[in-house]
Amino acid sequence: MNFWYYENHQDTVTFGIKVDKHLYTNKSDFQQIDIFENDVFGKFMTLDGLMMVTEKDEFIYHDMITHIPLAVNPNIKRVLVIGGGDGGTVRELTRYKHITKIDMVEIDELVVKASIEHLPITSCKLDDKRVNLYYQDGLEFVKGKENEYDLILVDSTDPIGPGEGLFTREFYRDCYKALSEDGILINQNESPYYESYRHEMKRANEKIKEVFDIVNVYQFHMPTYPSGHWLFGFASKTYHPIKDLKKDIWENFGIKTKYYNTDIHVGSFMLPTYVKELLEDESK
Amino acid sequence: MNFWYYENHQDTVTFGIKVDKHLYTNKSDFQQIDIFENDVFGKFMTLDGLMMVTEKDEFIYHDMITHIPLAVNPNIKRVLVIGGGDGGTVRELTRYKHITKIDMVEIDELVVKASIEHLPITSCKLDDKRVNLYYQDGLEFVKGKENEYDLILVDSTDPIGPGEGLFTREFYRDCYKALSEDGILINQNESPYYESYRHEMKRANEKIKEVFDIVNVYQFHMPTYPSGHWLFGFASKTYHPIKDLKKDIWENFGIKTKYYNTDIHVGSFMLPTYVKELLEDESK
Repeated sequence: MNFWYYENHQDTVTFGIKVDKHLYTNKSDFQQIDIFENDVFGKFMTLDGLMMVTEKDEFIYHDMITHIPLAVNPNIKRVLVIGGGDGGTVRELTRYKHITKIDMVEIDELVVKASIEHLPITSCKLDDKRVNLYYQDGLEFVKGKENEYDLILVDSTDPIGPGEGLFTREFYRDCYKALSEDGILINQNESPYYESYRHEMKRANEKIKEVFDIVNVYQFHMPTYPSGHWLFGFASKTYHPIKDLKKDIWENFGIKTKYYNTDIHVGSFMLPTYVKELLEDESK
Repeated sequence: MNFWYYENHQDTVTFGIKVDKHLYTNKSDFQQIDIFENDVFGKFMTLDGLMMVTEKDEFIYHDMITHIPLAVNPNIKRVLVIGGGDGGTVRELTRYKHITKIDMVEIDELVVKASIEHLPITSCKLDDKRVNLYYQDGLEFVKGKENEYDLILVDSTDPIGPGEGLFTREFYRDCYKALSEDGILINQNESPYYESYRHEMKRANEKIKEVFDIVNVYQFHMPTYPSGHWLFGFASKTYHPIKDLKKDIWENFGIKTKYYNTDIHVGSFMLPTYVKELLEDESK
């Protein structure tokens, strides 16, 4: 059988993966969920036809969303994950023994169920006793909360479909309030390369800068996302992501990682000139 | 017309670009040369069906091969470019007024002719009076030369076809001899992500380490190359790429760049853990 998954990264640019098995397909109230298998990437999950996670490179995304803030504030104890239905972000958080609470708010229970069934590589720690799963809209969940978390990780889809509200000014303001005085927010910040993603990158960054005092963007190589050049935003009330890096403390945790290290922590905030210019100049 | 260019990054992974125009096609003594046009990438050239250069992102590759060594040794005067038939590397070199000689050795004259005709964005400085074009095998050209260059840039295709000899121990030794006492070699170092490219990455690195005292690998985001995660090698007789960075001198040149800056200079040498481990452990 010659069966291929294609994702159009632009109307005239496509990325294709030959499918060995179509393991799962379902339509939830929110989106189309599929899990496929390929010899290079292993199992991979798509939502509404867009690549979310592959067994081969999920470590890159999950390392970079989790360990960056934990190496800046190694005292983080209470964490909120918004989205992240595959469980990979929670898995990385559970490696920190001193974290006491991990609330995960995923709008789509079916994504979690499918991940538990087919993607144990990411979902394996969702049963950790510190993890509380809430199947509701992250936007509503965070509203009205005050000083409840040291870290919020927005592990969302793109700002179309169910992820849309997670890219609004109001949501970022609610996150600010829900965070402790030295709280950190990490947000999915899209990509600078293709025009359509660049637009969302700039919008997310502009809105967060209105709310948080310290806002920096960092980059990583994510080969299965459009262009392979992806960004997270680091927003904080007090900490600077590089000046406040606690290199020795983090290394003493003894957490073995495949992508993250305290060198690339610093290096990932060093952005190409064109990306810096796009983020600085709000008119572009 | 629904006409697509596809490059298989692996047997079961493909990257496709819709072609508006097929501007050039020719078979030289060495390879199949094609130039296409697409609305996102502009004009792009392929050799034997593999992506070499696009108008949209050529600045990334050419910035990173050229400005890294020039910011470490801003006194570089005599440069040898091996390969680089599209002219983009030479274009960046000509921006340094103090460079006195640029020898470019390209095995395939047809690549240069096609680039001059269709890719002025990269080929526009091949007529600079400091540039000497040699249409011959770089491997032969460099043999027997002693202390003739301050910098050698290996801007080659992958180690299959005409680029193969440029990944050999003997070639790196000849480069070492052709370089001055404080000479620098930059080599195409492939990619860590897919198994096939990873193998070549390790081989190139191991061989260069046998020849040069200081060898470091640096990375950049090249969206049209397989996985988008690409590497160059920095090899030197005396200079360390970070400790010897001449930030102020380079910035005083006033060269405006779209990707390179002295921050990403440092950041690009900060590698993911799995890449470091692959490069350190020769058994993997």
